[in-house]
Amino acid sequence: MRRALLIGIGAGGLDQLTVEAVAAINDADVFLVAAKNRGVDDLETLRKAILRRHRAATDYRVIKVPDPERDRDPTDYGAAVRDWHEARAAAYESVIAAEVPEGGTCAFLVWGDPSLYDSTIRVVERIRTRGNLELEYEVLPGVSSVQLLAARHRLVLNRIGGPITITTGRGLARDVAAGADNIVVMLDKDLAAAALPGDWDIYWGANLGTPDEELVAGRLSKVLEDIHAARERAASARGWVMDTYLIRRA
Amino acid sequence: MRRALLIGIGAGGLDQLTVEAVAAINDADVFLVAAKNRGVDDLETLRKAILRRHRAATDYRVIKVPDPERDRDPTDYGAAVRDWHEARAAAYESVIAAEVPEGGTCAFLVWGDPSLYDSTIRVVERIRTRGNLELEYEVLPGVSSVQLLAARHRLVLNRIGGPITITTGRGLARDVAAGADNIVVMLDKDLAAAALPGDWDIYWGANLGTPDEELVAGRLSKVLEDIHAARERAASARGWVMDTYLIRRA
Repeated sequence: MRRALLIGIGAGGLDQLTVEAVAAINDADVFLVAAKNRGVDDLETLRKAILRRHRAATDYRVIKVPDPERDRDPTDYGAAVRDWHEARAAAYESVIAAEVPEGGTCAFLVWGDPSLYDSTIRVVERIRTRGNLELEYEVLPGVSSVQLLAARHRLVLNRIGGPITITTGRGLARDVAAGADNIVVMLDKDLAAAALPGDWDIYWGANLGTPDEELVAGRLSKVLEDIHAARERAASARGWVMDTYLIRRA
Repeated sequence: MRRALLIGIGAGGLDQLTVEAVAAINDADVFLVAAKNRGVDDLETLRKAILRRHRAATDYRVIKVPDPERDRDPTDYGAAVRDWHEARAAAYESVIAAEVPEGGTCAFLVWGDPSLYDSTIRVVERIRTRGNLELEYEVLPGVSSVQLLAARHRLVLNRIGGPITITTGRGLARDVAAGADNIVVMLDKDLAAAALPGDWDIYWGANLGTPDEELVAGRLSKVLEDIHAARERAASARGWVMDTYLIRRA
């Protein structure tokens, strides 16, 4: 039996993980990191910096797991994501079998919170379903970019008595058509909100928690240019942009 | 000019606050605590335990602010909540003016995360709007009970590509009628989900993060009795119950 810890490390730099996440980091032998090839090496650097800062003993290993290619423009989105999870599960399974001893503990440092648009829980469940490896696991929650966005704008996400919808850029038009009018959007590199009919207020952020964090707020139609300019600054500062925003019907 | 720190302390006991929240706790002179009269003294005890554990110097004060009465069954819910915020703002304003010196820093230890169905940001904004007191403030995000629920059930809150609705017990029927089918419900002491038509899966938790935490998961119609029994155990163990759950159309 091996053990995995899925540790939410927050979305705000080196110190936004919880005290219990720090304890979990000190409880693991091996850290598994997806080796992506999409210019987000910053996140790998951040994970290593978190380990240097919060891991007391130096007897740990960081192992990169090559991330399977993913079809970014599939005809069947759900099937493509499931295929990718399966490929990831196979990759992690073989690394865990080879690198984590029986009785050992490996950890995934999950950016933000593992429960929100993150694949780690699904991949670990897939490894268990495959049945080649006995793997127990535990999830430690972290602060998500949604909460960091709200904190930076000093926003309450809900209107009094009202609901919050959390969705992706891909799902935004569908959810607005269904009546959502107070919406947090994640994973939207194309600012899908710009194409919505009607008047909206936006509270936007990119690269939250980095030294080059960008924030813009206002009537969407009036701040679109500010957002595009801020995205360009973020991209040229760090080589990547991660957007999160709240829109609310005006 | 005075300063306020709105510090999310997480929903999971003494160590679920972030390292940066610990630093903020060590940066404040006065801690303001709402003196409620509704059997949730546990939360006050927890806040004091967090201070004992994470505050290095002992030169701090904890000041109870009597919490205004709130109409729990109003004809106009929004207006009643706004009146209550105004009364709270007046109460905090006078305590801050009397107890926090010019240039001093006070802090609110907010259970969970300040951006989610919490009134602290609105009350502080109200104090600023009233204009009697110059008050700067900063929000530090925390892990919410939503994320702790997900971690305990090892859930990803979204289905692949799908949205998440977060709402209250009061708003649930309205949001389901509007088409929501993957819903986190907070502040629902009457388990409004039990009255919904159709088949639902539920992932339920109460008093998360306490030693008497309760978890139930399954087809809603089959686990209703388990949930009622678990609520009674939680209530008799601690004198109060706080529920959070995810329901997903089966």
